[in-house]
Order: sequence, then C-alpha cells, then structure tokens
Amino acid sequence: MIDRLIEKIDKTGNPSVVGLDPAYEMIPGKIKKEMLDSYGKTPKAVAEMFIAFNKGLIDGLHDIVPAAKPQIAMYEKYGLEGLRAYVETTRYAKEKGMIVIGDIKRGDISTTAAAYAAHIGMTAIEGDVFDLWNEDAVTLNPYMGFDGIEPFIKPCNEFDKGVFILVKTSNPSSADLQDLDASGAPLYEKAAALVGEWGKLAMGSMGYSRVGAVVGATFKEQGERLRKVMPSTFFLVPGYGAQGGKGSDIKGFFGSGRRGCIVNSSRGIIAAYKKDPVYGDGDFAEAARAAALKMKEDITG
Amino acid sequence: MIDRLIEKIDKTGNPSVVGLDPAYEMIPGKIKKEMLDSYGKTPKAVAEMFIAFNKGLIDGLHDIVPAAKPQIAMYEKYGLEGLRAYVETTRYAKEKGMIVIGDIKRGDISTTAAAYAAHIGMTAIEGDVFDLWNEDAVTLNPYMGFDGIEPFIKPCNEFDKGVFILVKTSNPSSADLQDLDASGAPLYEKAAALVGEWGKLAMGSMGYSRVGAVVGATFKEQGERLRKVMPSTFFLVPGYGAQGGKGSDIKGFFGSGRRGCIVNSSRGIIAAYKKDPVYGDGDFAEAARAAALKMKEDITG
Repeated sequence: MIDRLIEKIDKTGNPSVVGLDPAYEMIPGKIKKEMLDSYGKTPKAVAEMFIAFNKGLIDGLHDIVPAAKPQIAMYEKYGLEGLRAYVETTRYAKEKGMIVIGDIKRGDISTTAAAYAAHIGMTAIEGDVFDLWNEDAVTLNPYMGFDGIEPFIKPCNEFDKGVFILVKTSNPSSADLQDLDASGAPLYEKAAALVGEWGKLAMGSMGYSRVGAVVGATFKEQGERLRKVMPSTFFLVPGYGAQGGKGSDIKGFFGSGRRGCIVNSSRGIIAAYKKDPVYGDGDFAEAARAAALKMKEDITG
Repeated sequence: MIDRLIEKIDKTGNPSVVGLDPAYEMIPGKIKKEMLDSYGKTPKAVAEMFIAFNKGLIDGLHDIVPAAKPQIAMYEKYGLEGLRAYVETTRYAKEKGMIVIGDIKRGDISTTAAAYAAHIGMTAIEGDVFDLWNEDAVTLNPYMGFDGIEPFIKPCNEFDKGVFILVKTSNPSSADLQDLDASGAPLYEKAAALVGEWGKLAMGSMGYSRVGAVVGATFKEQGERLRKVMPSTFFLVPGYGAQGGKGSDIKGFFGSGRRGCIVNSSRGIIAAYKKDPVYGDGDFAEAARAAALKMKEDITG
C-alpha cells in the first residue's frame, strides 16, 4: 500500500488526499431535494445524498488526487444507513483507482483489535473470505500501546495494507495529553519513537513503512522535529486549510525527494462550491477539482 | 444514566456488566447450523447467529445483571450485517431494561467528535429525530484531549447519557504510553485528573458524574490510587476473569457505600457453557446465569 501510495503521488505530482467527510449542510440543494422526495426525512435519504455527493466528487478528482480519506464518524452519525454510504464510498473510490484511507481512529486490544483489523484484513467465514470495508489503510489510536497495533501488522504485510497512528494531532487541545513532559520529552515524541520502532515490522520497498503516523499541519516545529525522530515513517497530515495549516508550514514535514507526506483537506475541497459565488449548486465537483489543483500548487510550490 | 445505573446496581446487588462480545467460535452448534443452513457462509448468517446468541444471553441475565456492554469491534468485523446485529442487540437489551454501554472507544475532534456523539445524542434530519444506536453510554479515548470529549457533555446532560473515558486499561502494553512519567506522575494519573475535571460538567444527583473512567482490574494498586484522584468518577472495570483480575483485587476501586464501580466480564459469562462439561450446547444461557451469579458473589463477598 505504501509503495502504491508513493507511486500514485509521484504520478499525479500531488501529495494530497481528499477528506470525504460529508455533512448534511454541504449537500447541494438539487441532490438534497431529490433524496428527500424519494426517501422522506430518513437516514436512508441522507445515505443516498452522501453517496451521490461522494461519487460526483470522486469522478471530479480521481485522476488528480491520489487518495481519498472518508471520516467514518460522519457516516456513523446516520446509523446503519450511514455506514452503508461509507462502504459504497470506499468501494467506488477504490474502483476509480484511488488509495482509500479509512479514518476510523480505532484503538483496542488483543481479540478486539484483531476484530477491528478486519478493516484491512479479510473476514473469513468457514473458509470463505470477504473484504467488507474496501480500505487500503486505516488510522489508529496508540493510547493502549502495542497490544492495540500488533494485530494490524500481519494484514499490513500479508495484504499490502497500511495504518497511520495518531502521534501529534492538529487540534488545539491535543496538548492536554500529547504535550505532557514524559521523562524529558513531550509524550508525542515518545509515541513517535514507538511508531518508528513498530514501523520496522512492516517496511515497504521504497524506504517507508506501512505503519505511518498522523502529524497535524498546525504544529510546524513539532512536525519538523518528528520527521527527524521517524525518518522512515510516512506522515498523514490533517489540519491543512480550514484548520489553519498552510503549504509553507509543512515543507519540513517531507523527507528526501519531497516524499514522505500526504496532506489532507476535507471541507476546503469538498465544500469549495459554497465559498466561491462563481460556482452554482450543480458545479460542486468542478469547484472541488479547482480547489484540489490550487492546494496542489500551494503544497508543492 | 449514572443515577439509573447506580439504582439498578443497588437493586440487583450486583455491580457487574456482561460484555456481549460474541465470537464465531463461541456460537453454540445448533444456532450455527441453523443460520448456515438458512443463509450460507455469509456475514448475514453470522449476524443472525450473534442476534440469536445475544438474545438468549439477555433473556438469561437481564434480571440479575444490571448492564450490557457490547464491544462494537466484534460486530464491525462482519461489516454492515455485523453492525445490524449490534444495533439489534442494543435495542433488545434496552427493551429488557438493561443499561447499555456501547464499547466503541471512539476518539476524534470537533465536528467529527460531534458526529460520533450521535451514539448517545440524537440524529436530527430536517427536524425529525432518530435514536439510531440505543446506547445509554459509550467508551471514549482521551488521546486528543478535551476537544474530543466536549461534544459528548451536552448529550450527557440533555438526554441523561454517559461516557467512560480510558484512563488505565487492563492490557499489559497499556504501560507503553499510559505509564510514562509525566512531570512526576504517570500519564494515566494526569489523564485521571482531567477526567475528574471534565466530570464536573455533567454530575448526576447521587455523587457520581455522567463522565466515568475505564480502569483495568489487572492493576490493583493503580486502581486504588485512582479512586483517590477521582472521587466522583464512576469506574468501568475491564480485565476481570479471563484477563486475570479477581474480586479481591478490586475492593479498593469502590467508593463509599460500595458504590462507584461496575465490573465487566465477557468470555467468563457468555462462553461459560464451554468451560463446564455439565452444560450442553443448548444450555448456554443457563451457564451464563450461573457464571454471573458466581461473579457477583466474588466481587461483593
């Protein structure tokens, strides 16, 4: 997965990922009306809205943006119907050749972690095997330690999948725990050292591990320092755009050859049509494409 | 929720919760055969197995065990069908009067955390309101700080729901991050102090907060110390039984009046029929009831 991701980034020249995090208020009026008319004020209607919106976005982006990162919470909000939209989204993004990163931030232990690992592994039932989530990689939480990560290592290697482990997140209160001084260094640096170690268990062939890290764009110096702590760790970088991170902030997050990072934007791309009066409701995919190209210029310029 | 939980524990005299964490290999042969015959080797067959198994367990336990804690990972493993079994399980446990704690360990920020909060809040669609998960409380991960917790406080108060935040988990590698020395005290004590503070925002009327903590039974001294750090925090205690925790280990986790804790057992109850040759395949609910009564004696004796 990590080699495929690097190749796809090199090919598009665009180290970015679109966050497919739909919210009800982002849905273009025409789609909203159609689904409410067909299915009433129901979770099914919202699921159909998300599917139509995401498919339009994927059609407009898949040749210029290498990866898609749906945030499962936005779908889980609408229960089983919402999750059906999530699975339909991952399926369609994969079909269109995008690398799919499930932003699920799961974190649990032993048999439970092994059950979550079905996201990137396979689910076997009496010898028959199912890929039920269509993800190439998922995000994970490190709070429970290696017991929570270990069950994902084998599917990473066996099925060429990946994980990105939270190290330094982009939100203001990430400091509550992550910045606590842990024996002379902030906790997130300790987490980073562990992620670097764990990463050795699942190396790709292009210098980076299938075990990556989440490092927020909003903390410039910390990100630069973490690049040194984790030289073989690929960074998934949230917090660009709407949360305040800029292209110039993250130059130092990259490794040699300008590789080693993929930068996420969600609202800034998928809801771009709402920001610019030049675009109408029906132009949401076109607006997203223009925003994605602008972002590419900003982060690679 | 926390007052209702305390009242229900007082009424049953049993501060325990059954972990409804079904695994394929736990399913009694008769149920397994019936569902494979009806639905083939499919996720739907496994979902129907889990529903039949859980309903039998709930029927056998609901009058003596105050709460049920389904671990969502075990269901997520089987994709959308698995999650249908989760929702059917929470619905049925609630209908039978049990307090339902969704073991989801979610942790994210701002709009994303707000979306996850639908687990204990309500999902509104054009003014219509849906309770899609049937949970009274959920477990949360604190790694991202207060930004990840704050969106849950309002539904806790508005709908009388609860959360349990990971502080010191029961697994061996919980030490990787949680035990790091953070300015003179282990990290989990810092997390505990935060959870105690956050708890003040959602107090119940019986001395405990709707914001609880997860504290593993496998760490006796740490749990006793945490009771002092968080006097108004209700503890959800995993790690009893199969993981090695005993009733005598957790005496000091309780607060005054022997309140303040609810102890989880999963395999030890739901798969009890596999341990004792006295029970056959069809007696799984009876075996679970006997195991639950034995556990009650151990933790209250």
